[in-house]
Amino acid sequence: MNDKLDAVLTQIDRNLDGSLARLFDFLRIQSISTDPAYAPQCRTAAEFVAKEMSELGLHAELRPTAGHPVVVGKSPDTASDTNGSAPSVLFYGHYDVQPVDPLELWETPPFEPRIATLPDGRKCIVARGACDDKGQVMTFIEACRAFRQVTGKLPLPITMMIEGEEECGSAHLFGFVKDNAAELKRDLALVCDTSMWDPATPMVTTSLRGLVYEQINLTCADRDLHSGLFGGAAQNPIRVLAKILAAMHDENGRVTIPGFYDGVHDLPADILADLNSLNLTDEEFLGPVGLKKAAGEKDRLLLEQIATRPTAEINGILGGYTGEGAKTVIPGKAMAKVSFRLVGDQDPEKIRAAFQKFVRDRLPVDCTVEFGNFGSAPAISLPYDSAPLNKALGALKDEWGKKAIPIGEGGSIPIVGDFKRVLGMDTIMVGFALDDDRVHSPNEKFDLTSFHKGTRSWARILAALSA
Amino acid sequence: MNDKLDAVLTQIDRNLDGSLARLFDFLRIQSISTDPAYAPQCRTAAEFVAKEMSELGLHAELRPTAGHPVVVGKSPDTASDTNGSAPSVLFYGHYDVQPVDPLELWETPPFEPRIATLPDGRKCIVARGACDDKGQVMTFIEACRAFRQVTGKLPLPITMMIEGEEECGSAHLFGFVKDNAAELKRDLALVCDTSMWDPATPMVTTSLRGLVYEQINLTCADRDLHSGLFGGAAQNPIRVLAKILAAMHDENGRVTIPGFYDGVHDLPADILADLNSLNLTDEEFLGPVGLKKAAGEKDRLLLEQIATRPTAEINGILGGYTGEGAKTVIPGKAMAKVSFRLVGDQDPEKIRAAFQKFVRDRLPVDCTVEFGNFGSAPAISLPYDSAPLNKALGALKDEWGKKAIPIGEGGSIPIVGDFKRVLGMDTIMVGFALDDDRVHSPNEKFDLTSFHKGTRSWARILAALSA
Repeated sequence: MNDKLDAVLTQIDRNLDGSLARLFDFLRIQSISTDPAYAPQCRTAAEFVAKEMSELGLHAELRPTAGHPVVVGKSPDTASDTNGSAPSVLFYGHYDVQPVDPLELWETPPFEPRIATLPDGRKCIVARGACDDKGQVMTFIEACRAFRQVTGKLPLPITMMIEGEEECGSAHLFGFVKDNAAELKRDLALVCDTSMWDPATPMVTTSLRGLVYEQINLTCADRDLHSGLFGGAAQNPIRVLAKILAAMHDENGRVTIPGFYDGVHDLPADILADLNSLNLTDEEFLGPVGLKKAAGEKDRLLLEQIATRPTAEINGILGGYTGEGAKTVIPGKAMAKVSFRLVGDQDPEKIRAAFQKFVRDRLPVDCTVEFGNFGSAPAISLPYDSAPLNKALGALKDEWGKKAIPIGEGGSIPIVGDFKRVLGMDTIMVGFALDDDRVHSPNEKFDLTSFHKGTRSWARILAALSA
Repeated sequence: MNDKLDAVLTQIDRNLDGSLARLFDFLRIQSISTDPAYAPQCRTAAEFVAKEMSELGLHAELRPTAGHPVVVGKSPDTASDTNGSAPSVLFYGHYDVQPVDPLELWETPPFEPRIATLPDGRKCIVARGACDDKGQVMTFIEACRAFRQVTGKLPLPITMMIEGEEECGSAHLFGFVKDNAAELKRDLALVCDTSMWDPATPMVTTSLRGLVYEQINLTCADRDLHSGLFGGAAQNPIRVLAKILAAMHDENGRVTIPGFYDGVHDLPADILADLNSLNLTDEEFLGPVGLKKAAGEKDRLLLEQIATRPTAEINGILGGYTGEGAKTVIPGKAMAKVSFRLVGDQDPEKIRAAFQKFVRDRLPVDCTVEFGNFGSAPAISLPYDSAPLNKALGALKDEWGKKAIPIGEGGSIPIVGDFKRVLGMDTIMVGFALDDDRVHSPNEKFDLTSFHKGTRSWARILAALSA
């Protein structure tokens, strides 16, 4: 395999100009999914992707949805029940891009890709979608192409599913996956839509936090009251709400809801040491949004606080008079929206129930509560001893000459949750975006190194997985 | 004086039909001040009042304002510096009324006054303004009329100031009083716009709470943040706000702001005993608005909580996402409106400063505050040993055969504050409204007993003050 891989990597290096030319063709397509005026361009992008898949030997088709089509391509050896020793994989990405406004802030037209040189000497590809997600998708496609050119086939059974609505909420993808579950289920999912730690340090995203979202509606008096007449005697629902919300965290930033930390696991010592060695400071992370100091659990690393520890956040609050000036009202009602980011094996419905009890236990006489139940999803995580994960980490280390970091991400990527829940698949998330890529903003870019070494990385990962 | 007073009271009894006829004439005038379409009717009502004043021997005139006119009438012996032994008084009331909608809920047309009989046998006058404030104003006028009829003159120097904008905010009265301070200043003000404790128990309102109103604007991050990416690390201003607001009261309902109770005096034992004897239950007071239990200072009577104790109330709160459904935002800003009802000698500006310090002391790193300053007024109170107060209490006891209660009112009556601050006058507030008078609502009424014995009460009070 090593000889074969070396040849594939050499082929990738030799192919770079051609790979770039194909990416540029892809970037010229104005596939802005959220604006119906660009529906034809979205279809053109889907057709482009299908053609690329065909060149890899995949059987590719545009599958209609109520929105933009999903492109599905399958290698001939792919079946829902594969028997070979190599795992079958489902690669996910998207061909649609964000809108380009404000257009006047682009230095060159967003759909005319070019190579630029950054002040520190890094070369990069500038265009809308250069990184998110056309550039990243093409790292996988070009790795496959090199394999096919060198070995005449792909190293393992590959199915690709490239959607066209990621930038507008993937409204039709979830139904598509559910409706075609048997057809799409593979041994493992691969996603290329995430970041590197820094330009020299690769990482694999191994966990995504889950979510429980609740709304509290408190009612005291059956109408708004005048604070002159009733002030001092009438229960004030904002005061009740403030007491409840203030009680949710202790002075060390821990959530006080009984049972909240059930199912939360500490990181293995080696992983914690890896994270610690990254030495992310509060100011580095929070400075760009005007903050200085991490406000979470005091005894946890910042990287734990934002990714592998659960949180309770108040997302909204409303009660009484909120217009200009003064109104001496004691409101009858007050409302708050509260959400929890979940990790490990926290059970969303147990958290929801524990929170509701926490609120009910703190209601004084004359105050009633109704809850609104919104999002609920458990956390997703790859075990740190997962064989595919460790193969991917090893492959990345080989390519970048530096230990790859397995890391958690603080938010959710809904499709990855669906891969787990609907298709029963784990997902390896590897991506080559950098913090300065200006994703969703004017002058979006993708480092040439990310593109080139990203392609080489996928070749190494596919080789490792197939071994 | 007793013989003279007896004759006056007899005259009032004999006059009752005439008094009612005059009140009915007054009630037929559609003097809705808030609707510009009724400006001519407001003027008609002002002219009616001026004519009544003239019949009492007052020199009456309509004084223009930018809104409806103020009617001012002065007895010939009135001067801004009186030398007689009897105090000079300024009587305040208003000739305007509330709108009548919803009109369909009136059993008879609102401006066609009639005598009705309540299920419990009480007779009452039904019309818009029957109580608020035409009926109450006429108790004073008819008492004066009887004096003049029996004695040929009024018992003390009387100035009346009857305005036409009380129901729409008295926007022009405050300037009028200030501009004519020297002309209007008397020894004492009398107001007939308040209530009895119950149909058998008269009361005198002896204190009005003051007010300080503040707005807190908190800022953490310089933008709204995604709770997936930043949740756990970013300071959340709603959480900060909840902690601050929750800390404002202790578990016994006391306000915890340092120095807050400076200048708050306990009630004299006899007054407290009087209030206690009224036996107002939480359910009686709070039941009508859907509540059961007083939520103020646990060691205080309900009547203290709502009238003679200071309060801190949250009047409004706003932060983050408050629309339908879920949005996983950590807001950059949050806002609350907080007001304080003041009593005794609490200093509004000291309270404001103490509150601001209380907030600042609780701000974590990464959270800044700006304050908005609204209303500020000290409490108003008559000393319990005030001679005019005790004369009024005695006169009411003589009329009703039951001890009259000196009581505090929880809200402010702005003009009474101005009488104190601008004109340096104390005010005796005596009124004959009852809780079931449906003031501001359809089928407003005024008990015939309130009207008749109210008139007799004023005759006794005027006699007592002049003695």
